[in-house]
Amino acid sequence: MSLTVVGTMAFDDIETPFGKSDKIVGGSASYIAWAASNFVQPINQVSVIGGDFPQEELTALVNRGVAMDGVQVKKDEKSFYWAGRYHLDMNSRDTLVTELNVLADFQPVIPPSYQGSEFLILGNLTPQVQMSVINQMNPRPKLIVMDTMNFWMDVALEDLLKTLKMVDVLMVNDSEARQLTGEFSIVKAAKKILTMGPKYLIIKKGEHGALLFHENHVFFAPALPLDEVFDPTGAGDTFAGGFVGHLAKTKDISFENMKTAIIVGSAMASFCVEKFGAQKLREITKEDISARLEQFVQLVNFDIDLV
Amino acid sequence: MSLTVVGTMAFDDIETPFGKSDKIVGGSASYIAWAASNFVQPINQVSVIGGDFPQEELTALVNRGVAMDGVQVKKDEKSFYWAGRYHLDMNSRDTLVTELNVLADFQPVIPPSYQGSEFLILGNLTPQVQMSVINQMNPRPKLIVMDTMNFWMDVALEDLLKTLKMVDVLMVNDSEARQLTGEFSIVKAAKKILTMGPKYLIIKKGEHGALLFHENHVFFAPALPLDEVFDPTGAGDTFAGGFVGHLAKTKDISFENMKTAIIVGSAMASFCVEKFGAQKLREITKEDISARLEQFVQLVNFDIDLV
Repeated sequence: MSLTVVGTMAFDDIETPFGKSDKIVGGSASYIAWAASNFVQPINQVSVIGGDFPQEELTALVNRGVAMDGVQVKKDEKSFYWAGRYHLDMNSRDTLVTELNVLADFQPVIPPSYQGSEFLILGNLTPQVQMSVINQMNPRPKLIVMDTMNFWMDVALEDLLKTLKMVDVLMVNDSEARQLTGEFSIVKAAKKILTMGPKYLIIKKGEHGALLFHENHVFFAPALPLDEVFDPTGAGDTFAGGFVGHLAKTKDISFENMKTAIIVGSAMASFCVEKFGAQKLREITKEDISARLEQFVQLVNFDIDLV
Repeated sequence: MSLTVVGTMAFDDIETPFGKSDKIVGGSASYIAWAASNFVQPINQVSVIGGDFPQEELTALVNRGVAMDGVQVKKDEKSFYWAGRYHLDMNSRDTLVTELNVLADFQPVIPPSYQGSEFLILGNLTPQVQMSVINQMNPRPKLIVMDTMNFWMDVALEDLLKTLKMVDVLMVNDSEARQLTGEFSIVKAAKKILTMGPKYLIIKKGEHGALLFHENHVFFAPALPLDEVFDPTGAGDTFAGGFVGHLAKTKDISFENMKTAIIVGSAMASFCVEKFGAQKLREITKEDISARLEQFVQLVNFDIDLV
């Protein structure tokens, strides 16, 4: 059983009302790997980095069971770099710098050792790159999960719609679901997206939790109410990593098990926002995760006798 | 076992993107009574109406087990009247007309027949009026639930803070919790409010659900994801009515039972928003309520094995 993760491994420079991170390791594939490796190993990483990417980060990931055969190293180039500043409400942010660097002409190559991987998660990237990965994987993974964002709806909608037809689970946030469908109602938007390819749809609402849609079923997972969100960077990718990690661990892709997987994702995301970058994800133990899952049980479980 | 309800019985004129209601019956005490009477009877209504209030509405409420001894009728005056228009997102609205009429000098009088009522809910009104009701009730009810709003924080903060010390459960929305405490974090705001008098705090987040806080415990109830919110007027009062109605029915004011009560409140609110005013609340049966509660079970229940 293995999980293939496609996404960025990059540098972030984050400013929040609580402080500045300076240049730290980030990127969707980093967060997904740190979260998912708590549940499943090996993880087959697919990404691209420059010669400036820290060796100790790669070593740390390898020690977590992350295979690097699919990570291209372009020694004479620089890694993808993003700098941003969060507003006081932490729900919106300004991008200060985006340097694509190695990402500009990223052509992922799936190594033979990754073939047969049963789970594939496509972090937010050009839809063409996501499609290329799907096409290279033979046999097709048992479950393909895809993240995307509004930017690709603006500049690559046609490719995005093609890629949607090839995946099983789509993850977007509420405003992206609205943009993709032209529907203001989240429920109507979800119904439309479920006709566009994915059989399962996760709509992320940040501090307001996440919804899972499948056929006529819906499941809701709250975000853990926290005293403070210190840094939301990577929370969505960490959520995705916890979600797909749980599915890969349990080898069960039923709707019922996806409910649990979303709670696991929410729990992992609740750690992520407590410190800058993936710092907290590096520190937590299996006991921490179990304790947090128990908090989610307490947060939503209730007894009811029907009227 | 009985429940005393204090609040407005009024006329509303509502405009939403879906249409206009024209002048219909509304008011916090109306919604609370329609919701709570599914769970507990009698309901001891405390309010004030003008000679223009429709007799058939009073008859309908009496048929639901609502006692009218505490409802003052001022034959030569007009009932409270509010007109408003919702924005496209249904989360904000403009007040077009507010005519206090009979409400301007409302002095509630608790009739002897209401004494001994074990549950009291104070709908949104001047804090002084809410306090006057508490002071008149002898013995003190077993549980006092209070709703309020930002307007009283602006114009009657001192009275509001005094009233807070006299109640067990406070209900406010997220922005009101922030205003009352000066804390942006909902969790920090909740902790502060729990030092101001109430032992239990419910923070309503509209379409994003509701949180219940008590000591170090927190519980979250989602709103039911709906295709459309047709008219949100009265949803908060309906939620309150379902909440306190369930508590009064079960006579159990433990935190665990309050969790269930919040789900019941959310279920009732999900009916309220489907039609103008309290129309839907008049139509639903016990079977409808049971079916909706089962939807909430499906919406949030999950199985988990700890990591």
